Amino acid sequence: MIEDTPVFAKIDRDEALTDTVARLTAPDACQAACHRISRDQPMPSLDALTEVVGMLRAVLFPGFFGPSDISDRTMPFYLGSALDRVVKLLAEQINRGYCFVCAKENRNPCTDCESRSEAVALEFIQRLPLVRELLASDVQAAFDGDPAAKSPGETIFCYPSIKALTNHRLAHQLHHLGVDIIPRIIGEMAHSDTGIDIHPGAHIGPRFFIDHGTGTVIGETCVIGQNVRLYQGVTLGAKSFPKDDTGSRLVKGLPRHPIVEDDVTIYAGATILGRVTIGQGAVIGGNVWVTQDVSPGARVTQARAFEQFFLEGAGI
Amino acid sequence: MIEDTPVFAKIDRDEALTDTVARLTAPDACQAACHRISRDQPMPSLDALTEVVGMLRAVLFPGFFGPSDISDRTMPFYLGSALDRVVKLLAEQINRGYCFVCAKENRNPCTDCESRSEAVALEFIQRLPLVRELLASDVQAAFDGDPAAKSPGETIFCYPSIKALTNHRLAHQLHHLGVDIIPRIIGEMAHSDTGIDIHPGAHIGPRFFIDHGTGTVIGETCVIGQNVRLYQGVTLGAKSFPKDDTGSRLVKGLPRHPIVEDDVTIYAGATILGRVTIGQGAVIGGNVWVTQDVSPGARVTQARAFEQFFLEGAGI
Amino acid sequence: MIEDTPVFAKIDRDEALTDTVARLTAPDACQAACHRISRDQPMPSLDALTEVVGMLRAVLFPGFFGPSDISDRTMPFYLGSALDRVVKLLAEQINRGYCFVCAKENRNPCTDCESRSEAVALEFIQRLPLVRELLASDVQAAFDGDPAAKSPGETIFCYPSIKALTNHRLAHQLHHLGVDIIPRIIGEMAHSDTGIDIHPGAHIGPRFFIDHGTGTVIGETCVIGQNVRLYQGVTLGAKSFPKDDTGSRLVKGLPRHPIVEDDVTIYAGATILGRVTIGQGAVIGGNVWVTQDVSPGARVTQARAFEQFFLEGAGI
Amino acid sequence: MIEDTPVFAKIDRDEALTDTVARLTAPDACQAACHRISRDQPMPSLDALTEVVGMLRAVLFPGFFGPSDISDRTMPFYLGSALDRVVKLLAEQINRGYCFVCAKENRNPCTDCESRSEAVALEFIQRLPLVRELLASDVQAAFDGDPAAKSPGETIFCYPSIKALTNHRLAHQLHHLGVDIIPRIIGEMAHSDTGIDIHPGAHIGPRFFIDHGTGTVIGETCVIGQNVRLYQGVTLGAKSFPKDDTGSRLVKGLPRHPIVEDDVTIYAGATILGRVTIGQGAVIGGNVWVTQDVSPGARVTQARAFEQFFLEGAGI
Amino acid sequence: MIEDTPVFAKIDRDEALTDTVARLTAPDACQAACHRISRDQPMPSLDALTEVVGMLRAVLFPGFFGPSDISDRTMPFYLGSALDRVVKLLAEQINRGYCFVCAKENRNPCTDCESRSEAVALEFIQRLPLVRELLASDVQAAFDGDPAAKSPGETIFCYPSIKALTNHRLAHQLHHLGVDIIPRIIGEMAHSDTGIDIHPGAHIGPRFFIDHGTGTVIGETCVIGQNVRLYQGVTLGAKSFPKDDTGSRLVKGLPRHPIVEDDVTIYAGATILGRVTIGQGAVIGGNVWVTQDVSPGARVTQARAFEQFFLEGAGI
Amino acid sequence: MIEDTPVFAKIDRDEALTDTVARLTAPDACQAACHRISRDQPMPSLDALTEVVGMLRAVLFPGFFGPSDISDRTMPFYLGSALDRVVKLLAEQINRGYCFVCAKENRNPCTDCESRSEAVALEFIQRLPLVRELLASDVQAAFDGDPAAKSPGETIFCYPSIKALTNHRLAHQLHHLGVDIIPRIIGEMAHSDTGIDIHPGAHIGPRFFIDHGTGTVIGETCVIGQNVRLYQGVTLGAKSFPKDDTGSRLVKGLPRHPIVEDDVTIYAGATILGRVTIGQGAVIGGNVWVTQDVSPGARVTQARAFEQFFLEGAGI
Repeated sequence: MIEDTPVFAKIDRDEALTDTVARLTAPDACQAACHRISRDQPMPSLDALTEVVGMLRAVLFPGFFGPSDISDRTMPFYLGSALDRVVKLLAEQINRGYCFVCAKENRNPCTDCESRSEAVALEFIQRLPLVRELLASDVQAAFDGDPAAKSPGETIFCYPSIKALTNHRLAHQLHHLGVDIIPRIIGEMAHSDTGIDIHPGAHIGPRFFIDHGTGTVIGETCVIGQNVRLYQGVTLGAKSFPKDDTGSRLVKGLPRHPIVEDDVTIYAGATILGRVTIGQGAVIGGNVWVTQDVSPGARVTQARAFEQFFLEGAGI
Repeated sequence: MIEDTPVFAKIDRDEALTDTVARLTAPDACQAACHRISRDQPMPSLDALTEVVGMLRAVLFPGFFGPSDISDRTMPFYLGSALDRVVKLLAEQINRGYCFVCAKENRNPCTDCESRSEAVALEFIQRLPLVRELLASDVQAAFDGDPAAKSPGETIFCYPSIKALTNHRLAHQLHHLGVDIIPRIIGEMAHSDTGIDIHPGAHIGPRFFIDHGTGTVIGETCVIGQNVRLYQGVTLGAKSFPKDDTGSRLVKGLPRHPIVEDDVTIYAGATILGRVTIGQGAVIGGNVWVTQDVSPGARVTQARAFEQFFLEGAGI
Repeated sequence: MIEDTPVFAKIDRDEALTDTVARLTAPDACQAACHRISRDQPMPSLDALTEVVGMLRAVLFPGFFGPSDISDRTMPFYLGSALDRVVKLLAEQINRGYCFVCAKENRNPCTDCESRSEAVALEFIQRLPLVRELLASDVQAAFDGDPAAKSPGETIFCYPSIKALTNHRLAHQLHHLGVDIIPRIIGEMAHSDTGIDIHPGAHIGPRFFIDHGTGTVIGETCVIGQNVRLYQGVTLGAKSFPKDDTGSRLVKGLPRHPIVEDDVTIYAGATILGRVTIGQGAVIGGNVWVTQDVSPGARVTQARAFEQFFLEGAGI
Repeated sequence: MIEDTPVFAKIDRDEALTDTVARLTAPDACQAACHRISRDQPMPSLDALTEVVGMLRAVLFPGFFGPSDISDRTMPFYLGSALDRVVKLLAEQINRGYCFVCAKENRNPCTDCESRSEAVALEFIQRLPLVRELLASDVQAAFDGDPAAKSPGETIFCYPSIKALTNHRLAHQLHHLGVDIIPRIIGEMAHSDTGIDIHPGAHIGPRFFIDHGTGTVIGETCVIGQNVRLYQGVTLGAKSFPKDDTGSRLVKGLPRHPIVEDDVTIYAGATILGRVTIGQGAVIGGNVWVTQDVSPGARVTQARAFEQFFLEGAGI
Repeated sequence: MIEDTPVFAKIDRDEALTDTVARLTAPDACQAACHRISRDQPMPSLDALTEVVGMLRAVLFPGFFGPSDISDRTMPFYLGSALDRVVKLLAEQINRGYCFVCAKENRNPCTDCESRSEAVALEFIQRLPLVRELLASDVQAAFDGDPAAKSPGETIFCYPSIKALTNHRLAHQLHHLGVDIIPRIIGEMAHSDTGIDIHPGAHIGPRFFIDHGTGTVIGETCVIGQNVRLYQGVTLGAKSFPKDDTGSRLVKGLPRHPIVEDDVTIYAGATILGRVTIGQGAVIGGNVWVTQDVSPGARVTQARAFEQFFLEGAGI
Repeated sequence: MIEDTPVFAKIDRDEALTDTVARLTAPDACQAACHRISRDQPMPSLDALTEVVGMLRAVLFPGFFGPSDISDRTMPFYLGSALDRVVKLLAEQINRGYCFVCAKENRNPCTDCESRSEAVALEFIQRLPLVRELLASDVQAAFDGDPAAKSPGETIFCYPSIKALTNHRLAHQLHHLGVDIIPRIIGEMAHSDTGIDIHPGAHIGPRFFIDHGTGTVIGETCVIGQNVRLYQGVTLGAKSFPKDDTGSRLVKGLPRHPIVEDDVTIYAGATILGRVTIGQGAVIGGNVWVTQDVSPGARVTQARAFEQFFLEGAGI
């Protein structure tokens, strides 16, 4: 039992404060919870990354985000100044990401971290045309797939799927370039906003759409083909985690999430676990739990969907 | 495979930047992702709509939101000034909503858009007494239905269900008045905050309550009676989307979501798809998947809920 | 049917406004929706509580949040000033919480509310070392249990589970100290951010981890042992709500949620309802619906996971 | 000589910090510079007063400040809600002003301070119609007196004189109602913005105008008639400060500043010191120094304005 | 006497409020103080103009303001996007300026105001190269003329003179283009910040410098040559204001301020009034009052600067 | 004549923009106005310095600024955390100050700048006890010298003199420690707020007071004794600036401003120029212009203060 009975004994304010500070700063108390870094290596900044992603969104979808009346001649001005600022801000955050990991692993202070961070940031922005191409295909897929969508622009402007995929496709590039922790933070920003949790490591092909999306989870080693559609509450997860020889630590990085081939649809609440393959064109029904391969073209549904009886039946 | 191997070749910063800008602003690159509008028709503003909804919340629940010590004599001052400002801000956003669609459809510049926007905003505020009446019934339902609620006021102040329904009932009126995209944005604001995704088109009767709510989805053409209660992760969705004669475009706007009659309860994770009818007083158990009508008074549960075996059994 | 046909009759703006204000401030219109308080008892402030929780997060995880380069000698400065400010802000909010309930129940104006609020705030901060100890165990559990986690620090910095548990473990202490509504608000703040909905009343032992988390619900009277792991979309809920003798009001406060013993794992989308016991070491598979006790060490899975057939089969 | 030679000896950061904190918190070091108050009596808030004055400006000049398109029917809404909020905010600040002085004089804790503060705030807002009447006369005087002014509205919207007089006429009412320190702060806010320093105690009649205004000073016991015009850099100050019988403390509150009768003009840089009377219609030239009475209708100029000689003359 | 004796009669709060609102909104009470405009013509926005001037400062002095590490290749991006935004924001404010005057003069609603506003804004930005050239000469003059200045850059970054002249040279162009009220507001922004009050109408040649500057006033019709230096507290004002034939209104717009030829220096506190000419190279001493022409090369000083006597002399 | 006649020729917006950008970024156009720095040496930040000075004000006057209810036991927490943050922020700004100058002088990139900056910041905070001692004496002098002051605390809380002296005494220490440009910026911050312009180089003894203050200027090489009182508009300036042997550049850094001995009073608008000495206890009257030594105990007034004549006399 964690708590004792509430007692409102007369406590001296200053004493209570001083005593609590002492207990919280005792070496033991601090061990697992405190971050020890050398000077001048601040934590990654959520605010800065929010600004970066906001600027990139305006670069990827000009006119939808950022200034709305860009012309062909003014567009280079806006994109150029935004990207220049992105490079600077992002290089700084990438560097902080390296240091975050360094500190944990007690490595020596970085020697080439700063120059490496800028090189990565430059490499990254050169991939933006590719990212836009993929997102444009996602936009079209969202419009094609949702009868409630009135125009592709509407899906850009307010669909959680496009928001989550924008963050993911950016984070995935950074992940691929070996950036530490920053991709994860960018993914979690979208997770918090949309309820869609995509690990930056997941490979996702073009024309991808997640309708509604809340609660959908896509694991680190997933490989998803093109033209795949998911609904809310779908899990593409791992089934079990092998441990290392000592038996005490998880082996990290192994392929352990599903492969989803082209043209698959997975309905709300379905759970697919482990390195299984969902064959091309398969359809997975809602709320089913899949831990084996599914053949191309198959349709999988919950066995005997439900039993129905009348009110005079027993309580639920 | 989207990415190539990470190479950190020495890139000239300015060159990388200039080159990327050129590629992103090339006519082709821009086609699907850029918004072209005529001047002076800015995008709808999330900030303005957030302010509008915040003011309306204070108008609908005086004393709970906005200034807390309103008296009978000062209340008209606060409501009057708030509503006057709402009309102005909202008319502006409604107009932007029209333009958003116009631009997409290459219609001629609006002639009566501005006056129409203000007329709609005025019509809208006159429906607020009705909206409040409905929300008051929702508040009572939340209090009656949740043993954890200590007072109706608590549900107003911090229940996600009331927050999502406030946005929905406002957005639904705007949707009904033919406003473009703005209702959807208001709905998505609540979706992002609460994880509850209600399409503004859905008809929802009084005394509606969604407990916990995360992941619940209510589709565009749903019709929900009175005194209905849902839990988290419930889907009231569409089953299939008929395409038009050409076979290539979805037919939009057809009734395709469930009808839920009075006094129905639907437990967590249930998925109900298509234009089926859940009869009055029916109870749908958790995690079931329903694609047929359910009789009034029926109780539907997952077939043979589970099998249980001991640890020495095979791995999951 | 709620709405009438949209008519855009020429409405006089000022008249529409004045008329709506009159209808909204009519005594009847206000009954259920307005908060009546005596002067100088403002509502709890979300902004202030956000600041409090932010400061406490920096106190619990120094270096991760707040200033990043704290040394052993400067740490007392930061923790001391933060906690002093927390006591002041929190005592104020605790008092507002009491008044929120008072007002509802028409009790007499508080006499000892203020001094009681400060005593509670002081008692609360003295429990922070305990809260940190529990959270440190949760951090280790998250790292041990997720192959995608590269370091314990990463889970502190960006895992929704740690964020939700930080709020919960703080809110739970306040709940236990008899604070009104404030714990619930702190819980809802995390719910909105992470999609994880934990009632402040729930008892949760050390080494607790919720992977992904969106849509997971943990009810008020849950009792969870140590080393328990949940996934997204898990519900630990109530099955039915007994009403009082009059038959019209719920009996509040009864134990009605599951007991989950040590070392249990519950996979995505599982729903466990009622005061059942999930025995030590049991594993609950995804998407199952459990309303009975589960033996220690048992593994529970969805009966006949799915049926698979080929595309030429009937439509879903 | 205050400083020693700069030495950049190797100082341990934490030691320097800890040592400085110790020296600054030593009882002696703190004596003259620290404010000791009992709990819950915070300092007056500059932010709150800025908000109060901003709202009052919008109440006094509707349409110029605050929302710009107020109609006859919506104006009561805006003024009513603004004044209600002003009463609350201002009463709080007035109370803090009393406490500020209490604390200094070691008086017993206030007993009726709160109720007195609200009574004063209510009395104060009832004087606003009078304040507006005076300011309207000042606006007309500014327009009549400045050939550069294109409309009376321009002087309301951007003349420092009207800004300073708005603050003064408000502060003067509070001063007259016995409010401590708050009037002075309101006066200093205008001083900082405009360079015009008017003590809240000064009596100023209608149709007052200060052109340009920077550096003009009007002392506590000044009495200024109607239709008076000043320019920048004018001082209406005190000449000498009699001390009390002990010879060590100034006698405070005695009339010691000029009386300026109706229709007087005082040009840039003039200095008028002591309880002298500048008679009706007198004109005081620029840069003169006056310490005696000036007759009605007199014109006072610098004696022999200047001598002029050529460049071959000695240096200045 | 404006005020009555302070009485703290028991006033009913709501009554006092309602009554004051009624008095302040009575038609008579409102006459001189309220702004009546037709809809959709909001007041000029100080915030928008502050943003405009801030962006222009970064355009005029790249690297000093705005992003600090601009290269030759990124500079066009930053200047282009800033100027595009300036044109939009400024055109809007220019239009509001026209409306401000319109409203006052009861003119018909604008027909070409919007297109005229944008044309003016475009014309304006094309004059920025000229404005920069002039400011660059001012910067050099400030550095050459102040022994305390360590570099020209220091004067750009923190000298009030450069700040005031930046605003002036921008405002002067707008004034010259016939923009209403906006130039004056821009001038007053600098006046409030620096204490330097330059009317936008004043013509000022290159290499102008005002040392310290507080209290210096330069009137609407001043003409100042090149290489002129002023100090704080200098007035270049008007002597008398002729009235029109009716004798009741000032004739506006006549030349009434000094002409200051090239290479003149005017020391602190000097007052020069009327359409007099200060000849080339003249030097005006501190605190003198000049109302006649001064010959080229002349040196003007206060007659018999002071008398000095010892303490045993009479009091001041 | 700078401007041509306003013509509103039809200008193409994009063309005007592109053309102006080209002209402003041409190498010639940029020469004098652009700042060229190497990467990662941003300009000093006004926001950061504002935060630093705000924190130092709270450290120097605890309870007046910052949290108001500090106790003896909590004070070290607040001062410690504030000073730790000051050291970090200030060291960063000091370093930027060095770079600002470096860049101008084309020096090699700093080698020891960062460590030197931190050493200086540490040295600086160790002088804060001395700074507080001086400011405490200034507070007492302000209270003793102004009959309008009701308590010493009032002068701390709202007198411009104390505000300006706080900034000055801090800036003076930094100036003395050889910090570039930062002290000047801190001085200008106070200048903008109060109209009091004190160069950081000026030596000012204890018990210094400037009443009202607007327009007062104290030059770089001034030496002011103890117990000196100034009024608004007083200039302690330089008379002439000797040039170097080439005759083209000012010799910088020579003593050129007045020495003011103990117990001197200087009234409003007086101008004292050059390296003259105002002897102990001297009194300088308003508006006089002094360029020679003044004997101890002397009283200096304007010669024949004014002439007075009646209205029938000629116009001014």
